Amino acid sequence: MAEDLITLDYGSGGLKTSRLIEEILVPAFRNTALEALGDGAVLENRGVPLVFSTDSFVVSPWRFPGGDIGKLAVCGTVNDLCMAGGEPRYLSLSFLIEEGFPMADFRAVVSSAAEAAKNAGVQIVTGDTKVVERGKGDGLYVNTSGIGFLRAPGLGRAAMRPGDRVLVSGSVGCHGAAVMMARGEIPCEGELVSDCMPLHRLSAAALQAGGVRILRDPTRGGVATTLNEFVEGSPLGIELEEEAIPVEPAVEAACGLLGLDPLYCACEGRLLAVAAPESAQAVLDALRALPGGEGAACIGRVTQERPGVVTLRTALGGGRILGKLTGAQLPRIC
Amino acid sequence: MAEDLITLDYGSGGLKTSRLIEEILVPAFRNTALEALGDGAVLENRGVPLVFSTDSFVVSPWRFPGGDIGKLAVCGTVNDLCMAGGEPRYLSLSFLIEEGFPMADFRAVVSSAAEAAKNAGVQIVTGDTKVVERGKGDGLYVNTSGIGFLRAPGLGRAAMRPGDRVLVSGSVGCHGAAVMMARGEIPCEGELVSDCMPLHRLSAAALQAGGVRILRDPTRGGVATTLNEFVEGSPLGIELEEEAIPVEPAVEAACGLLGLDPLYCACEGRLLAVAAPESAQAVLDALRALPGGEGAACIGRVTQERPGVVTLRTALGGGRILGKLTGAQLPRIC
Repeated sequence: MAEDLITLDYGSGGLKTSRLIEEILVPAFRNTALEALGDGAVLENRGVPLVFSTDSFVVSPWRFPGGDIGKLAVCGTVNDLCMAGGEPRYLSLSFLIEEGFPMADFRAVVSSAAEAAKNAGVQIVTGDTKVVERGKGDGLYVNTSGIGFLRAPGLGRAAMRPGDRVLVSGSVGCHGAAVMMARGEIPCEGELVSDCMPLHRLSAAALQAGGVRILRDPTRGGVATTLNEFVEGSPLGIELEEEAIPVEPAVEAACGLLGLDPLYCACEGRLLAVAAPESAQAVLDALRALPGGEGAACIGRVTQERPGVVTLRTALGGGRILGKLTGAQLPRIC
Repeated sequence: MAEDLITLDYGSGGLKTSRLIEEILVPAFRNTALEALGDGAVLENRGVPLVFSTDSFVVSPWRFPGGDIGKLAVCGTVNDLCMAGGEPRYLSLSFLIEEGFPMADFRAVVSSAAEAAKNAGVQIVTGDTKVVERGKGDGLYVNTSGIGFLRAPGLGRAAMRPGDRVLVSGSVGCHGAAVMMARGEIPCEGELVSDCMPLHRLSAAALQAGGVRILRDPTRGGVATTLNEFVEGSPLGIELEEEAIPVEPAVEAACGLLGLDPLYCACEGRLLAVAAPESAQAVLDALRALPGGEGAACIGRVTQERPGVVTLRTALGGGRILGKLTGAQLPRIC
C-alpha cells in the first residue's frame, strides 16, 4: 500500500478495508479460520465446534430512528454469528466512553443493549469499560464479540454453484439512510427507520428450509460490496435483476438526494442468502413467514458468464457492473 | 449514582468502575456467568466448558518501553483467560483507528500483536477495523476478546480459606511506571520497562502445582485494588507484609516522584495467586522455575481478623488499610 496515513476509506468496508485485511492482517496472523474471511470464525473447543465473531461500533450519531449503538452492537454481532452458521449464545460488551458522556445516555444504551440481547436470546456474560479524555473519542464506542454453537457447517463461497439463486430478506439500505437522516444530511422528513434487528430467527428458518450455500448480512458497503465478496477471484459471477431488488421509496428518495446508490447503503437487519435453485422458493417462504422477512425476494442468480463480477441487469435490458464500494461513501454508519 | 456525566474515574479500574459495573451493568444483564465478575466468564458449549473474555485497550502513548498496544492487547486478553482458569486458544482483534494514523505504525502494531500471539500460543481468528475522523479518537484503540479451554474449574473467591497464602509472580507496578515514563511524567531516565507478557506458562505451572484458589492479574488499580476485590463483602480479609512485596527500585523511585503507591500501579505480566498454605511453596517453586516468574514471592495471607479488608503490615510493625483505588490516578494505563 502506497499510502502513508490511514484515511476514513480504510474503515468503509469497501475496497480499502479489503486491502488492509488482505495485505496486512491476514499475512500477519495466517491461519485457516481467519483466511476464510467469514463474518465469524468457525473453531473447535475440544472437538465441539463453535463460531466466534467480533465487531466495533462507532455509529454517528449514537442514537438514530429505529435504534441506538447499544441495540446495533448486540444485533451486529448476533447477526455475524448467525451468518457464519451459528446459533448465537454469549456476547461480550466493551464500552469506550469519552469523558463527559451523560450518565443518563449511558444507562439508555445499556438498557437498549439488554433489551436487544433478550430479543436475540443471548446472554451478555463479560465486559469492559474504558474512559478516554474529552476530544479523544466521540461520546461512546462499543465493541461486542460473540460465541455461538455451530448449527450449519460448510457455509461459504466454496459451496456456490452456477444457477444458485440470490435472496434478500427484505428491502435494502434502510439503516444507512436512517443514520444519514439522523445526521441531518438529508433535507427531508420521510419515514426512514433503520432495519436494525437480530437475524437469529430468519437465519435459522432459512437453514431449516435447506439448500443454503452462503448467508451474509450486507452491512458496511451494502448489498453490492457483500455480493462482490462472494464472487471475487472465483469462476462464478452474480447477475442481479434491478427490478426485483426491494428498495423503500423513502430510501430511494433519500439516496437520490445525496447521489448515493441504495445497493451500497448498509443494512443491519437483512440477510443475503445464496440457495440452490430447487430450494430457493422454500427458503423464501420460510423467510416471508417471519417478522422482518415479509419482504424477502429473489434478486438474482449465480452465473458462469462473468466470473468474479456482479452485474446489475436493468429494467430496460441493459447491464452495468457493480464493483465494491470505493472510498468512504458513508463513514461511521455502524 | 449522583453524577450526571461520566468522568475519567469511571475507567480507572477502581471504586467508580466497580460502581458502574455493580449498579448499572450487572443489573441490566443479570446472569450467573457475568455476576461471578471474574476476568473471564466460564461458559459451556454443548456440554464442553470454555472461558470467554474481552478487553479494550486505550493505553497512551501507544508505544512504551517493553511493548506497544498490539502486544498489550494480546497479552491482556490471554492473561484474563488464564486467570479464569482457561488455556487460551483463540483471539479476536478489533482496531479503532483515528484518521491520519501512520500506516507504518499500524503495521508495527499488527506485527507486534502477531508476535505476542505466537509467544502465547493463540491464534487470531477474526477481527474488525473501524476508522473515525481526526479528533474523534487518539491514534489507535484496540479490542481483543478471547476463548480458552477451561483447565481449572472452581477458581474464585468462594474457594478462599483462612490461612491461605497470597503469592505474586514478580515485582509489582512496572507497567504503570513504564507508561508514565513514556508520557514524560517522570523526570528521570531509569531502567523502567513494562512487565507486559503472556501468563499462560506461569498460570499453567501454578495450577499444576495444586492448591490454587484464585488467580488474577493486577492490571488497572494494581495489587491493592485486585486484592480488595477478593475480600470485598466476604468474611475474610487479607494481610500483606510490606517487606515481602517485590518492588523494583526504579519503580519505587518513579512512584515516589509522582506521589504514587506502586501497590496501585498496573502490572500487565504478573499474576496474583491465593493458594492453600500446604501448597504455597510448591506454587512458588513452580513460578520461580519459569522465565518471568523468577521474582515470585509470598506477600501475605488470608485472615479472619478483618473481614472485607486488605491490611498492609509495615516493617516497623504498624498496619494500614489498603482500600480500592479511588479516582483516576492513572488514566489510560492499558
